[in-house]
Amino acid sequence: MKLEPVGFVRSNPPGGPAEVVIYEEFSEALDGIDGCGHIWVLFWMHRLGEGDRRTLKVHPMGDRNRPKQGVFSLRSPVRPNPIGLTRVRLLRRDGNVLVVQGLDALEGSPVLDIKPWIEGTEG
Amino acid sequence: MKLEPVGFVRSNPPGGPAEVVIYEEFSEALDGIDGCGHIWVLFWMHRLGEGDRRTLKVHPMGDRNRPKQGVFSLRSPVRPNPIGLTRVRLLRRDGNVLVVQGLDALEGSPVLDIKPWIEGTEG
Repeated sequence: MKLEPVGFVRSNPPGGPAEVVIYEEFSEALDGIDGCGHIWVLFWMHRLGEGDRRTLKVHPMGDRNRPKQGVFSLRSPVRPNPIGLTRVRLLRRDGNVLVVQGLDALEGSPVLDIKPWIEGTEG
Repeated sequence: MKLEPVGFVRSNPPGGPAEVVIYEEFSEALDGIDGCGHIWVLFWMHRLGEGDRRTLKVHPMGDRNRPKQGVFSLRSPVRPNPIGLTRVRLLRRDGNVLVVQGLDALEGSPVLDIKPWIEGTEG
């Protein structure tokens, strides 16, 4: 189960919009995406260390006043497989670049997959 | 970017409910999940071959009457990184087993991550 990056988050200024660059060799896989109002971006949370992958319980929102909870019940980036999942609005595709709004990912994050968001299915 | 399975889909009979087994060593990461009505299950589409990872355009729904489209614009399992994403209803947690409804994953699929689904955020 080895992942291959298909692109990366080039920029994500506060307030957006953000730019997701898809590597040229995968650009063709974007054909037809213009019809999508929203898309899922799956990415690798690259700043996390090996220790974060072994941590199974954390304080919700980092708030030490709240008891620790299992990471599968939280959106914390700390988890065994640091895959980030963020739904964004697709503003436009410029060749191999997606311009999106609402990207919850750090600049430089490797992108793993793009999936269409289909209303009603929540998938 | 190497993935480690945290569990697997033990059963998924037609009509459900399905059972997702989390390996004992990760069971603690489920603490607090009982409060979640719906969860995301991220899994590895293990039946796909290397060729499927190099295929960038396919006929939507396998329908040859429809022109090929990029896999990032489709929910097709064929894609560079075969990560499946499915939102399910959490019926109950029995220790290290999650009993869920609506799981779109084959039996035996390695599970990579569980995330809470939070209404309104679509994330």
